[in-house]
Amino acid sequence: MKRPRGKSHCPVNFALEVFGDPWTLLIVRDIVMWGRHSYHEFASSSEGIATNVLAARLEQMKNDGLLHQEASQNDRRQTRYYLTEKGLDLIPPMLEMATWSSRYDDQTIAPPEFVRAVVDDRSKMYESIKAHVRNNGAVLDGDDPFIKYITK
Amino acid sequence: MKRPRGKSHCPVNFALEVFGDPWTLLIVRDIVMWGRHSYHEFASSSEGIATNVLAARLEQMKNDGLLHQEASQNDRRQTRYYLTEKGLDLIPPMLEMATWSSRYDDQTIAPPEFVRAVVDDRSKMYESIKAHVRNNGAVLDGDDPFIKYITK
Repeated sequence: MKRPRGKSHCPVNFALEVFGDPWTLLIVRDIVMWGRHSYHEFASSSEGIATNVLAARLEQMKNDGLLHQEASQNDRRQTRYYLTEKGLDLIPPMLEMATWSSRYDDQTIAPPEFVRAVVDDRSKMYESIKAHVRNNGAVLDGDDPFIKYITK
Repeated sequence: MKRPRGKSHCPVNFALEVFGDPWTLLIVRDIVMWGRHSYHEFASSSEGIATNVLAARLEQMKNDGLLHQEASQNDRRQTRYYLTEKGLDLIPPMLEMATWSSRYDDQTIAPPEFVRAVVDDRSKMYESIKAHVRNNGAVLDGDDPFIKYITK
């Protein structure tokens, strides 16, 4: 059941109305952590989002100004989704969720060196990751993953 | 519709499975920001949670180890809810959500001096607020609100 919007302008409520639905932050995660940018890549994530839910969610995120889309350079028929500045600014809450889980999930797959680096200097890490993702990098995957800079 | 749990141990997904439901973080907000601790106080929050949803949510949060309950010292028939350490550790993601909203909601009610103080030194503010709430203080309300230390 979807909560209606505009219940209050409390800043916690406002955020939850925009990205409180789990799928939104999982799509942000797919882009930031794994460099996924296409509908098919999002659909194949391990949480198994239903395709109709995914399509509606991408539309919603575009309307909310979190995503913009471009035609793929390799195949003009393929759409690729990127985070806007507003969407990139979801990196801090997402990282703090991940930090919390790394502490409380005894089966967590969060890389400990990454979590340590975030906790060590949060503002610096938020900015560095944002800059990396803005340049189409990802934290854990790709030719030049951000995690390389943490672990060396 | 509730997503089933255990879809993956990705740390973003794990966090969303525990507190991705909007009501959970609004109850955390009620405690941390406003010093609300009773069923009736949560029920009277501006977002208007339905009483059956609230009751189920408080039970869930106790089962997840986020809340513990005590009988009120004034009236033993009244139950009061407090955050455990695991629940207090939701303060960082909540504050980052609030920071995001203060930037993107043009009708935000977030106190700007508070947001500035968080962004200035995140780890210090997370710890200070956690300590204050652990001692039954609140950020914005009560005899000795945390905001006093920011604004003076």
